Amino acid sequence: MDKKVNRRNFIMTTASAATGIAGLSILPNVGLSKSRTLTEGIHIIGPKEGFSPQVGTLLSMMTWMRNVVVLGVENMKTTELDYLHDSTSNTIGAMLLHLAATERQYQIKTFEWDIDFKGDGKINWDAAMRLGDKGRKYIKGYSLDYYLTILNETRLTTMNEFKKRDDNWLSKVDSAGFQNMPTNNYCKWFHVCEHESNHNGQIKWIKSRLPGAKPGND
Amino acid sequence: MDKKVNRRNFIMTTASAATGIAGLSILPNVGLSKSRTLTEGIHIIGPKEGFSPQVGTLLSMMTWMRNVVVLGVENMKTTELDYLHDSTSNTIGAMLLHLAATERQYQIKTFEWDIDFKGDGKINWDAAMRLGDKGRKYIKGYSLDYYLTILNETRLTTMNEFKKRDDNWLSKVDSAGFQNMPTNNYCKWFHVCEHESNHNGQIKWIKSRLPGAKPGND
Repeated sequence: MDKKVNRRNFIMTTASAATGIAGLSILPNVGLSKSRTLTEGIHIIGPKEGFSPQVGTLLSMMTWMRNVVVLGVENMKTTELDYLHDSTSNTIGAMLLHLAATERQYQIKTFEWDIDFKGDGKINWDAAMRLGDKGRKYIKGYSLDYYLTILNETRLTTMNEFKKRDDNWLSKVDSAGFQNMPTNNYCKWFHVCEHESNHNGQIKWIKSRLPGAKPGND
Repeated sequence: MDKKVNRRNFIMTTASAATGIAGLSILPNVGLSKSRTLTEGIHIIGPKEGFSPQVGTLLSMMTWMRNVVVLGVENMKTTELDYLHDSTSNTIGAMLLHLAATERQYQIKTFEWDIDFKGDGKINWDAAMRLGDKGRKYIKGYSLDYYLTILNETRLTTMNEFKKRDDNWLSKVDSAGFQNMPTNNYCKWFHVCEHESNHNGQIKWIKSRLPGAKPGND
């Protein structure tokens, strides 16, 4: 899998063509890609070539989940990405950037990078992480490609770092990772993955209430 | 882990006492339980005693995720569980029952049970699965304990069946599981797990808009 990935086809892949079936969760809405690079075996959770077995298994979940998120926002216009449902809502665009910001935070924590989360100022990671007022103030006016490119670049960095690490790293325990309780890297990255689904639920809720949208089931 | 589980302490555990830290996803809001039975090692994703390694790893994710959901609804009154934000919304109660219905559907599919999904009529599984109009019509007036008990009984059934199965079963491929593409049981059960997070995102969104609620960050 990883051997064939470069930024372009990864972006093509995650900005996938949709033929998923909406509706009951029994048929989750998963993007099918123009590129076969990542979607061959998209519904097979398990070890992946180029990664240690458990790391590859985790990555297969993250890839499946990301395709669900990307399919849901496909072809969204900036006005839709910026739509504010009420005064305390987050926009869909801000939530997409929040997913990348969360992944970046966990890269810094679990890859033990000594860098500033806020970065070089090109991306407002702080607003993306906090959402709320800061998100509403600073994250607006961007195209879908802006968000997908940042998501994809962040994911490619994760994949490249995952390649360097093994299952022992994944099971490495931080004695006070969450709530001052022992937490392993697998749990931290599982959270990064399920957190995409958490916000995808909110994205779907807002999407079905966009001006002119067909009412959904969320 | 499983050795010590019986229905009562499992319910105690999942209906857990909350001391989680809300806010940034860097600190996910995970319930801490009065019982240590399941929360010892709650943040350790990996093999669990009594289950084959990959099945136990999957179950550890499902347990972590379920605690997040249960913590979020702790102490909710029936009026809150029945709150309808708008005419197309699902209530929090209906979404909780939907999680149990989804798990039941995947039990039937992946454990290859020849039973009727709709069951004996005591629980409106069909309304819970479909949500929307049927959910709004039929799923109301219940206490939190009603939903938690069904969720817990459904999960205990899953755990008991998981104990009987191994990693070969988890990797077993259904040639047309999702979107007519090959899908293994691991993918189907990962979906059951992430689907809880999807609806938890919506539960949190609605919770922060309950009459009199403190505005949240969702």
